[in-house]
Amino acid sequence: MIGRFDQHREARTGIPEVIFGEGKDPRDVRAIFLDYMERGEQLIATRVTPELLEALSDKLDALHHYADARILCTRQPEPDHTRQTVMVISAGALDRRVAEEACVSAALLKNPVERVFDVGVAGLNRFAVELDRFDNAGIIIVCAGMDGALPSIVGGLARQPVIAVPTSVGYGASFGGVAPLLSMLNSCSPGTAVMNIDNGFGAAVLATKINQLASRAAASPKG
Amino acid sequence: MIGRFDQHREARTGIPEVIFGEGKDPRDVRAIFLDYMERGEQLIATRVTPELLEALSDKLDALHHYADARILCTRQPEPDHTRQTVMVISAGALDRRVAEEACVSAALLKNPVERVFDVGVAGLNRFAVELDRFDNAGIIIVCAGMDGALPSIVGGLARQPVIAVPTSVGYGASFGGVAPLLSMLNSCSPGTAVMNIDNGFGAAVLATKINQLASRAAASPKG
Amino acid sequence: MIGRFDQHREARTGIPEVIFGEGKDPRDVRAIFLDYMERGEQLIATRVTPELLEALSDKLDALHHYADARILCTRQPEPDHTRQTVMVISAGALDRRVAEEACVSAALLKNPVERVFDVGVAGLNRFAVELDRFDNAGIIIVCAGMDGALPSIVGGLARQPVIAVPTSVGYGASFGGVAPLLSMLNSCSPGTAVMNIDNGFGAAVLATKINQLASRAAASPKG
Amino acid sequence: MIGRFDQHREARTGIPEVIFGEGKDPRDVRAIFLDYMERGEQLIATRVTPELLEALSDKLDALHHYADARILCTRQPEPDHTRQTVMVISAGALDRRVAEEACVSAALLKNPVERVFDVGVAGLNRFAVELDRFDNAGIIIVCAGMDGALPSIVGGLARQPVIAVPTSVGYGASFGGVAPLLSMLNSCSPGTAVMNIDNGFGAAVLATKINQLASRAAASPKG
Amino acid sequence: MIGRFDQHREARTGIPEVIFGEGKDPRDVRAIFLDYMERGEQLIATRVTPELLEALSDKLDALHHYADARILCTRQPEPDHTRQTVMVISAGALDRRVAEEACVSAALLKNPVERVFDVGVAGLNRFAVELDRFDNAGIIIVCAGMDGALPSIVGGLARQPVIAVPTSVGYGASFGGVAPLLSMLNSCSPGTAVMNIDNGFGAAVLATKINQLASRAAASPKG
Amino acid sequence: MIGRFDQHREARTGIPEVIFGEGKDPRDVRAIFLDYMERGEQLIATRVTPELLEALSDKLDALHHYADARILCTRQPEPDHTRQTVMVISAGALDRRVAEEACVSAALLKNPVERVFDVGVAGLNRFAVELDRFDNAGIIIVCAGMDGALPSIVGGLARQPVIAVPTSVGYGASFGGVAPLLSMLNSCSPGTAVMNIDNGFGAAVLATKINQLASRAAASPKG
Amino acid sequence: MIGRFDQHREARTGIPEVIFGEGKDPRDVRAIFLDYMERGEQLIATRVTPELLEALSDKLDALHHYADARILCTRQPEPDHTRQTVMVISAGALDRRVAEEACVSAALLKNPVERVFDVGVAGLNRFAVELDRFDNAGIIIVCAGMDGALPSIVGGLARQPVIAVPTSVGYGASFGGVAPLLSMLNSCSPGTAVMNIDNGFGAAVLATKINQLASRAAASPKG
Amino acid sequence: MIGRFDQHREARTGIPEVIFGEGKDPRDVRAIFLDYMERGEQLIATRVTPELLEALSDKLDALHHYADARILCTRQPEPDHTRQTVMVISAGALDRRVAEEACVSAALLKNPVERVFDVGVAGLNRFAVELDRFDNAGIIIVCAGMDGALPSIVGGLARQPVIAVPTSVGYGASFGGVAPLLSMLNSCSPGTAVMNIDNGFGAAVLATKINQLASRAAASPKG
Ligand SMILES: Nc1ncnc2c1ncn2[C@@H]1O[C@H](COP(=O)(O)O)[C@@H](O)[C@H]1O
Ligand SMILES: Nc1ncnc2c1ncn2[C@@H]1O[C@H](COP(=O)(O)O)[C@@H](O)[C@H]1O
Ligand SMILES: Nc1ncnc2c1ncn2[C@@H]1O[C@H](COP(=O)(O)O)[C@@H](O)[C@H]1O
Ligand SMILES: Nc1ncnc2c1ncn2[C@@H]1O[C@H](COP(=O)(O)O)[C@@H](O)[C@H]1O
Ligand SMILES: [Mg+2]
Ligand SMILES: [Mg+2]
Ligand SMILES: [Mg+2]
Ligand SMILES: [Mg+2]
Ligand SMILES: [Mg+2]
Ligand SMILES: [Mg+2]
Ligand SMILES: [Mg+2]
Ligand SMILES: [Mg+2]
Repeated sequence: MIGRFDQHREARTGIPEVIFGEGKDPRDVRAIFLDYMERGEQLIATRVTPELLEALSDKLDALHHYADARILCTRQPEPDHTRQTVMVISAGALDRRVAEEACVSAALLKNPVERVFDVGVAGLNRFAVELDRFDNAGIIIVCAGMDGALPSIVGGLARQPVIAVPTSVGYGASFGGVAPLLSMLNSCSPGTAVMNIDNGFGAAVLATKINQLASRAAASPKG
Repeated sequence: MIGRFDQHREARTGIPEVIFGEGKDPRDVRAIFLDYMERGEQLIATRVTPELLEALSDKLDALHHYADARILCTRQPEPDHTRQTVMVISAGALDRRVAEEACVSAALLKNPVERVFDVGVAGLNRFAVELDRFDNAGIIIVCAGMDGALPSIVGGLARQPVIAVPTSVGYGASFGGVAPLLSMLNSCSPGTAVMNIDNGFGAAVLATKINQLASRAAASPKG
Repeated sequence: MIGRFDQHREARTGIPEVIFGEGKDPRDVRAIFLDYMERGEQLIATRVTPELLEALSDKLDALHHYADARILCTRQPEPDHTRQTVMVISAGALDRRVAEEACVSAALLKNPVERVFDVGVAGLNRFAVELDRFDNAGIIIVCAGMDGALPSIVGGLARQPVIAVPTSVGYGASFGGVAPLLSMLNSCSPGTAVMNIDNGFGAAVLATKINQLASRAAASPKG
Repeated sequence: MIGRFDQHREARTGIPEVIFGEGKDPRDVRAIFLDYMERGEQLIATRVTPELLEALSDKLDALHHYADARILCTRQPEPDHTRQTVMVISAGALDRRVAEEACVSAALLKNPVERVFDVGVAGLNRFAVELDRFDNAGIIIVCAGMDGALPSIVGGLARQPVIAVPTSVGYGASFGGVAPLLSMLNSCSPGTAVMNIDNGFGAAVLATKINQLASRAAASPKG
Repeated sequence: MIGRFDQHREARTGIPEVIFGEGKDPRDVRAIFLDYMERGEQLIATRVTPELLEALSDKLDALHHYADARILCTRQPEPDHTRQTVMVISAGALDRRVAEEACVSAALLKNPVERVFDVGVAGLNRFAVELDRFDNAGIIIVCAGMDGALPSIVGGLARQPVIAVPTSVGYGASFGGVAPLLSMLNSCSPGTAVMNIDNGFGAAVLATKINQLASRAAASPKG
Repeated sequence: MIGRFDQHREARTGIPEVIFGEGKDPRDVRAIFLDYMERGEQLIATRVTPELLEALSDKLDALHHYADARILCTRQPEPDHTRQTVMVISAGALDRRVAEEACVSAALLKNPVERVFDVGVAGLNRFAVELDRFDNAGIIIVCAGMDGALPSIVGGLARQPVIAVPTSVGYGASFGGVAPLLSMLNSCSPGTAVMNIDNGFGAAVLATKINQLASRAAASPKG
Repeated sequence: MIGRFDQHREARTGIPEVIFGEGKDPRDVRAIFLDYMERGEQLIATRVTPELLEALSDKLDALHHYADARILCTRQPEPDHTRQTVMVISAGALDRRVAEEACVSAALLKNPVERVFDVGVAGLNRFAVELDRFDNAGIIIVCAGMDGALPSIVGGLARQPVIAVPTSVGYGASFGGVAPLLSMLNSCSPGTAVMNIDNGFGAAVLATKINQLASRAAASPKG
Repeated sequence: MIGRFDQHREARTGIPEVIFGEGKDPRDVRAIFLDYMERGEQLIATRVTPELLEALSDKLDALHHYADARILCTRQPEPDHTRQTVMVISAGALDRRVAEEACVSAALLKNPVERVFDVGVAGLNRFAVELDRFDNAGIIIVCAGMDGALPSIVGGLARQPVIAVPTSVGYGASFGGVAPLLSMLNSCSPGTAVMNIDNGFGAAVLATKINQLASRAAASPKG
């Protein structure tokens, strides 16, 4: 059930098609991985389940598996050093899973990546000591569950584009991430880009597209 | 349609019954105001509409009307100086209406009140310059619409009880205040007390009950 | 995945950081517990899962485990007798779990605690016989699922601050606790402090902050 | 736009068809009223708008208009004294409009009616003094907005069938009556019959059907 | 965790307290069953889980277990023949579980019961052949999932009080029973009594209260 | 603000583009109408507001205006008699507006149309007397608000394709038509085609596309 | 718990009753299958669970089982070649399950079926290469999750009736298929027929009813 | 009620604070405009209401008013020609208002702007003829109501960062823009940046931040 794999997407949009692992038939996923390994090309799968790993267990040595990020791929590309750094900030301890999906995806899409984890708004002191590191970044991704307040604070301080990823971390009236999603859509820091709940991969794609634009601009400056 | 006015509520709970003005028949409200004015007793009405003011237009000189707070009352009591100061913080410019309902209600319930308005999280600098004033407060009420992020930040810094009031300020996916309401219920600063949307009056009542407890504790200390 | 533990939170806000157990990596939780046990300091974890207990099974003798409350901690502090009693009321039989989280959290945060359980509004007689005990309390926490009606009744009778915790007890149109949550936010007893669904711990934190204010007021009375 | 008026409904179900006034074309409503007046038969319209009244202004002397209940009819029948009394209880002052719709509808459907208004749960004392009157009633209708808590309390004390009508009274997280609707559907007093929001008429119809059953039972007892 | 069992509820309201089994500790449920068996009194538990049955496996011979209805009780009372028949109608095949909860509960509360199952509106012919049986009934309970349309049709044809129970049968935009719940609250047959989703027990309690009223009326007729 | 009018839509899909009137600038709508009148071509506008009519008041004699349906057009085409009859059924009196939008749209799209109005399920007798007329129809559109039950009944009896249009008729828990929308999506008569709330025009378009297919099939039969 | 199987439905509506497998008692399903096998008649069950297959494991050789579609039946009828082809288009790889339910159901209801799978809007190129095949189809079913955008594009290009099936494929703010459901109800291609989430069977039934109308029209053409 | 105007925001984030006009007191807005006019500095107000325009009617000649965009400002800056073009695409005719807010905001924030309006997915032909213009753009903003499908299509074809703005255009199950909002959050084109409903201004801010990054990158290229 992999279906028609969209092999021309990278040529068209700059971003290769990537397999979303959850719910896929392990045999189909194994087949396409074998095909790409043979051809020596990059293939990325996100939301990799234990069943998928099991189906590829004899091949894992030749693959790259990022357990926290739940990502599996055939190649580990070098970052493109003409690109800006993508800084990934996470709020609570449990938001890390989503933040790791963003980090690893961004790295595999060739962006330099920097992590600033566990700086939730309940202790702004932890956040404050990291403020200097902002200057290193070109684009900032912020992953937060519960009240989803962190992107507003980052967005009010930073000149970089800010990409907010609500996470499903929370319980009760969090409604699986609806609370931080609404919070981010209503951020009082205008211009915050919002992703679907837990969509760390999408944030990395947007960061990459922004970064590619900056590289193109640097390569052939206007004005 | 004022119904049975609950005259014993203050004796029972420490808080007098207060008329919620919206939707009430102006003639009924006029009648009860005349009655209280004659008896020289305090009567408070919130959410006072233009129609209610019109019905009492010949008596407004003898009454106290707080236009921003939409509150009308017969007497203006002195603050009880054995009480702690209630600090009312508001985020955006439009959250002031709700913040004023909280301030005036708290003052009429005899609490000393201090305002820290317009310190939304999109410009934490405005907030930072006020941090010293926190020490003056015994209880903090925070009114915020949009992302509802401010109470989390206050709660992570303050040792005072924090009462959060979501406001209906916002549009689109704010859903009339649902976004800040959910944000506050999921605050990553634990122990945040949440009120109904726009319920500045309720925040003042809770602050008063807390303040009365502190006064009782001071009057007859334990241990 | 414990992340940066916020060790200065107690100094800043009076409330220590507490580990939320659900979803945490058992090895990380074990490590931080071993660290605190060695240093002889208090560490509290809520929503402790069987997996976490398993990871600490060889240390449980030296720890305090409250099964109903799902709380684990290193030390069992004495209540602070300058504090007011926190009364925890629960409605239905199944609301007890949340009520126990509130009770144990309040006790670990050094408040004297009193339980009034199983006094739902379908049999107000059970409630009536407990009314005298109210006078003992400084702060009242009410945990209720289904119709969430109990806090309104308590709030209409009591002069104490009332903290309402909706529980996820119920089925169908309860929507996992949304029904009592909305009921409590719309309580006709003004000034009811509302917590997230099942958040007994948050109620205990708010009660503690109120209690600490009363103690400070008693220590240095105003006016 | 009155459409096909269902003239046989009373023969079939014991309840005549009744016109829901809101949104109807005033000329159509006038026409059907003239027709029934001429035939000397009972016609009832609920949710009567100012426009409908205007269209019938020259006939209002010969009609019965209940302003609070927003009901207009051609005849005022005597109560059927073989029926049980329908007691209508309302919580807050603004719930009266819905309660009046229930009262007038029940009376026009020939039930003896008794009103117990303004006994909301925030002051159970007002409720307590009315408890004796319960014995007079065969069926109890309870109208309440905000937390919708009153039917649970009535249902836990009364042996009569209890019909709960949530009202749209409230603001913010009341969501136009959703809060009391959910509260009533989750009432911890089992067997509470719930109506649509503001549907006082529906409550009166159900009460009438119950009362007719009781009359039939009395007329030809079983066993 | 059975809590304070409300032993006086039957004296007060005519309906005994009944244990809701889901989520209860099997040992507590066993203890209370042993107690009632010893005293020879009736005890009813609904939503009985396999765990509860397991805990009472050595006593099941002396108890009455209704598997489809998920009900367990100590005694099987005779129907009270002065009562009217409660007819329970179900729509789809899967609505039967809820319908059986209603039937068995009604029977244990001493009502004569008649079943008309599987007469959903997609084949009104199946319904039509049962129409004559309506005359036998005093009260009608209708259980339906999916579109929840059946109570409207019954209510438009019957003079009996109609109690509608939405079931969680369905998928997708059924939202666990919200679709039939809303359909029933908006029934175009006025006076339909609506219960919580899957609440067959509540329907039986309401039917019993109506039936008891009819019996009282028959015992001492008015007028 | 008419934008780029999609003049080739009819060639592509068989259905001309139609102007949705609400919110459009009256001057723009006037301009396009003048253009089409001059060219003698058909132009249809739905949801025509008083403002739009006002802007075209001097041209209304030369246009066709259907007040109930809120539709305005330049030409009144003959029905195509190779087509099947589209039967439009409406439930309550207020559903007629939407039903008329469906009828007039279907007629302007050249379908023979037949109306069966005001046959709601609360009085199936009114429906029953029309059953014979079903045989005349090729396609059935059913418009219903409130419980949205009528399409299930029609769909269980008819062999024709059934198109269900939920209307916003109702109040309270109707939520502006959500109740009948969900009811129809969960219809127990499988194969019911559901439209957006109040979308009588969309129903007419679907009926036309089905009818055009039938005409094509009749013109060049298969097999 | 199969209930009264509606054996006359096919005679009445042209569509046989079909068993919805989920939640049914395997013994009941086995019994009805044995009965139909013996009588040599067609019986179709959808949403067939592993438990149902297990209960019929000794009969599977004599039955037809479509694993992807989760459909089991006794006979495999020939397509009716007087019918138009039903084209089933699916967007993402995971939408195939629902698309297969539509395909197999349509085939068992005797329609010629053609599959165009995996042509989601993120790569319109994959869609573009299939455009020519549209001309072969009489009716088009489109199954899509996530943004549910595909039916709008198909509907803007095709003259065939378009039936849209939202799928529960997605996560986070997909809310189990609500996102594509709303998208389809609001399709800017007017006349899109919308089904319940994941209801591939319903789409096949509607396609069949449309196809039967076309066949009837071809058999006895009008005009 | 303008509150503390955040004058340092531009220095900090690159984006000046902008007044949100709706709900502001016209006198306050007038005062701040007079102040900025005197100082000769740029001040921008969005969502400008007729009341605000009225209050500044004597100054409108010296101000710039964009009626469709509902924006008022003191100065009209030249676009910065080192920046990339921001292309703004709109779907339906009524989406233009929001698209104009995005266009004017982007222009006032000094971006070169290009409009591609009225290219909704119901007529992809209108869209297709514009495809060449994509190459001119650095960043693409897409405004769409109803099904919100357009950003998915653009995102699947373009290498530029895509910013999606759902609009409240639609009715019924559009729920004021929720339908396109969910559609966009679930876009099958990964990396789509989503804004709040109708938030054209926010889209312009994000585009500006991206553009500023590209300019910085061009000014001091990496690698
Ligand atoms: N602004 C307000 N917000 C919430 N509750 C209020 C407000 N003002 C008054 N109340 C409460 O509303 C109740 C009055 O309701 P009523 O009897 O309808 O006038 C009293 O319990 C008041 O304490
Ligand atoms: N199936 C049921 N559905 C709804 N309420 C029930 C059910 N069974 C028992 N109850 C009620 O739930 C309450 C028991 O709750 P608990 O104290 O948690 O056992 C009693 O008031 C019962 O009357
Ligand atoms: N009453 C209606 N309901 C739904 N869609 C409509 C209606 N009237 C016109 N339309 C469609 O709306 C689109 C016109 O939108 P616009 O370009 O904004 O005029 C066309 O595709 C019409 O087919
Ligand atoms: N996959 C399906 N989705 C929706 N409805 C179905 C499906 N399969 C069967 N049905 C219908 O569900 C009904 C069967 O319900 P039941 O009597 O519970 O087996 C019949 O009317 C079928 O036409
Ligand atoms: Mg932490
Ligand atoms: Mg401001
Ligand atoms: Mg109990
Ligand atoms: Mg009152
Ligand atoms: Mg069946
Ligand atoms: Mg009618
Ligand atoms: Mg794919
Ligand atoms: Mg257009």
